[in-house]
Amino acid sequence: MSKLAVLGYGVVGSGVVELFYKNKESILKKANKDADIKYILDIRDFPDSPYKEKFTKDINDILNDDEVTIVAECMGGATFAYDFVKSCLLKGKSVSTSNKELVAAKGAELLAIAKEKGCNFFFEASVGGAIPIIRPLHKCLAANDITQIVGILNGTTNFILGKMINENMNFDDALKMAQELGYAEKDPTADVEGHDACRKICILSSLVFGKHVYPENVYTKGITKVSLEDVTLAGKFGASVKLIASVKKLSDGRILPSVMPTLVPYDNLISRVDDVFNAVMVFGDGIDRAMFYGRGAGMLPTASAVLGDVIEQLKTEGKTDTAQTWQDSADASFIADHKENECRMYFRVSGSENFNIENIEIIDNSSDIAFVTEKMTVAKAEELADSMEKSGVQVKAMMPVLEV
Amino acid sequence: MSKLAVLGYGVVGSGVVELFYKNKESILKKANKDADIKYILDIRDFPDSPYKEKFTKDINDILNDDEVTIVAECMGGATFAYDFVKSCLLKGKSVSTSNKELVAAKGAELLAIAKEKGCNFFFEASVGGAIPIIRPLHKCLAANDITQIVGILNGTTNFILGKMINENMNFDDALKMAQELGYAEKDPTADVEGHDACRKICILSSLVFGKHVYPENVYTKGITKVSLEDVTLAGKFGASVKLIASVKKLSDGRILPSVMPTLVPYDNLISRVDDVFNAVMVFGDGIDRAMFYGRGAGMLPTASAVLGDVIEQLKTEGKTDTAQTWQDSADASFIADHKENECRMYFRVSGSENFNIENIEIIDNSSDIAFVTEKMTVAKAEELADSMEKSGVQVKAMMPVLEV
Repeated sequence: MSKLAVLGYGVVGSGVVELFYKNKESILKKANKDADIKYILDIRDFPDSPYKEKFTKDINDILNDDEVTIVAECMGGATFAYDFVKSCLLKGKSVSTSNKELVAAKGAELLAIAKEKGCNFFFEASVGGAIPIIRPLHKCLAANDITQIVGILNGTTNFILGKMINENMNFDDALKMAQELGYAEKDPTADVEGHDACRKICILSSLVFGKHVYPENVYTKGITKVSLEDVTLAGKFGASVKLIASVKKLSDGRILPSVMPTLVPYDNLISRVDDVFNAVMVFGDGIDRAMFYGRGAGMLPTASAVLGDVIEQLKTEGKTDTAQTWQDSADASFIADHKENECRMYFRVSGSENFNIENIEIIDNSSDIAFVTEKMTVAKAEELADSMEKSGVQVKAMMPVLEV
Repeated sequence: MSKLAVLGYGVVGSGVVELFYKNKESILKKANKDADIKYILDIRDFPDSPYKEKFTKDINDILNDDEVTIVAECMGGATFAYDFVKSCLLKGKSVSTSNKELVAAKGAELLAIAKEKGCNFFFEASVGGAIPIIRPLHKCLAANDITQIVGILNGTTNFILGKMINENMNFDDALKMAQELGYAEKDPTADVEGHDACRKICILSSLVFGKHVYPENVYTKGITKVSLEDVTLAGKFGASVKLIASVKKLSDGRILPSVMPTLVPYDNLISRVDDVFNAVMVFGDGIDRAMFYGRGAGMLPTASAVLGDVIEQLKTEGKTDTAQTWQDSADASFIADHKENECRMYFRVSGSENFNIENIEIIDNSSDIAFVTEKMTVAKAEELADSMEKSGVQVKAMMPVLEV
C-alpha cells in the first residue's frame, strides 16, 4: 500500500483530503493501487478533525518515513514550501503541488532534483486550478510546435472586470465585492497587479519552450488602472477588457511573454469567459487552436488537479516523467522585450482633438475620444503616446487588442 | 529505435506522416526515444510520395515484423480496420486510432485484448479531433465523480447550424455549402442524422462510466428537421440551437446518453462554439465544470491527437494503461430511456391558440406560436404534444433546453 502525505491543511490541503476520502474507491481503482493518507502537516491544531491522528507539525516525520512515497504540497509560498518540497524530492518522494509561486520561482531546480532522484515533480494544479492544462500541453499536444498561448489565468481579476463590464461597477466596488465573496485576499496585490497571472504564464512558458522563465523577466501590468470608461468604450469597439497572460514564439526563436489588460474581440471565445473562470487558449501547428476552460481556484477544483497528479504518481511510481522538465538559465536573452510586441492599440485621450493619425476608428465619448490603431509595435505606440502628450493631448489609457 | 506503422494514407494518415516528420526532433525528444515510421499501409499507389519506399498493401508485412511495436490506425470503418487493429493487438503491438466507429463498436473487446497482451489501445483522436479529452478525462479528472458530459461533438452539423443562426440560411443551402467546403461528405447521413456524434458520446460514456455503451442503445436525433424558424425563435428565447450529445448519471446509478438538437442558453459557453469547432463540457464533484474546445476534425488536428497517443505509446512501451479500460456488457439496463430525461421543452405549434399550459413564456411568430415549458420528463412532454394534436394544435417542433 502506498502512503501519502499532505503538506498544509488550508483551503486546498483540506480539499485534497476531503476529495480523496469521498472518491477513494474509484481513485484507487483508477490508480490500480492501494493507498492511504498517512500524514497531514500543519502548524495548527485540528482536535475535532476526523483525521486528527494523521496530523503532524514536524516535516521530519514525513521525510524519515520511507513508507511515504508521494507528497501533496498545498502550503503555498516559496519559503517553507520550497525547503519541504526539496527535502522530499531529495529523499526520492514524488511531489504534486498547487503552488504556482514555488513552481515559477524554483521549478527548474526542483524538476532537476526529481529527475536525478527518479521521482516526479508534478504541478497540474499550479495553473488554471481545476483545468487540465499541464498534462494536455506536454502529453496530448506533444506533437505540435506550440506557437502561442493566451489565457485568463486569474479568476479574481476576471470577476472584477466582469462586474465592471456587466454591471457597470467601478473597480473599487468590484474589488470590495470580490473580497466579501472570498475571491480576493485582504491584500489583493498579487491578483490585481497581475503577479499571480504572471507566475502562471511563466510556468506554461517554461514547460512549452523548455527554459525557465522567471517572473521578473515578464512585463506585467495589472488591472488597477482599468477604468469603467475603458471597459464601456471597449464594448463599443466590440471587445471585452480581460487580464490576458500570453506568450508567443517569435520568428527568431525568442519568446515574448506578458501580462496586460487587453481588449478581446467578441468573436474570440476568451471574451465570453466570465465570473471567476479561467481559460487557456493554445496555438500549435497541428491543432490550430484549442481552449481549456474551468474554475481557476477554489477548494475542490484545485484539489481535483492535485489528486489527478497523485493518481498519476501512484501509477508511475518510481518512474520519472522526463518530458516535463525544463532547463534553468541565468541568461534571459531568449525573452523578448514586450515593446517588440506587435498589435493594434486602443487609446483613450482627451484635452484636444488636434492630432492626426491615419486609419483609425474614433469613438467620441463626450469628454474623451477613444480609437484603435493599426498594428504597430508597443514601442511605436509609446512614441505615438509621447508625441500626443507633447501636442497637448492627454493619453488617459492605452491597451493592446488581442489578435488571434 | 522504435518502428511505427501507419494504417491508411487518407486525410488523417497522411497528416500523421506529415506532422511526424515536420516535428520529428521535438517529438522524439518528448518521447525520450528514437523512432521512425517503417510502414504505411494503403491499397492505393503513391509513386510520387517522398515516403514511397515505406508503402505496403499487405498488413502481414506489419504483423510479422517484430520491429514494429506501435501502429497508428487511420483507415476508418469497422471492418478491415477492426481485423487489422485486432491482429496488431494480438501480436502485442500498441495501437492508436482516430476511428470512432471502431471504438464505439468494438472498444471493450479491443481494450481487453490490449490488456491481456500487455500493450496499449489509445483513441484520443476518436473524440473531438484535436481536443485533448480522453486523457484529461481518465487522468487529470480521475479524482472526480463525473456526473454529466455535454458536448458539441460534430463539426459539420455545428457549421450548418451556425450558417442557419448567423446568416439566415436554410438547412439545405447550409449543407450544400458544407459539402462544397469539404466539411460534409457527399452522403452526409452520418453527420446530419447524429450517428457520428452518437459514436463519440458512446466512447466518452464508456470511458467514464466503465461499461461499453453501444450506439444502438443511445437515443439519437439529427438536425435534418431543424428549421430556420426554430433557430430564429430560439434566439428570441436567448438560446442557440446546437446538436448536443450528452450523458448524465442518474441518482440510481444508471446513465442517460442522448444526441438531440437542443436549445443552449447564451450564458452557457457552449452556445458560443461556432463554425466547425467542437467542445466538451464535463461536470464533476471536484471541478464543478470544465470545458475543452478545438477543431473536431481535419488532417493536422486529428493527426496531432493520434501522434500525442503515439508519443505516449513510446514512453510507456510494454506497459498497459489499465485505467483506460471498460467492461463489455450485453445487458443494457444501466442505460436509461431518454424519455426519463427531465428538462424544459421548447415547442413550436400552430393551427389554434386553443390550449392552456401553465407557466409558459409565449412568443408569437405571426403564423406559429413558440413556448418553453417548465421542467418535465420527455415522456410528459410527448403526452403534452399528443394532447395538443388531439385538440387541433399542430406541433411543428419540440426540442429540449439545456440546463447546466
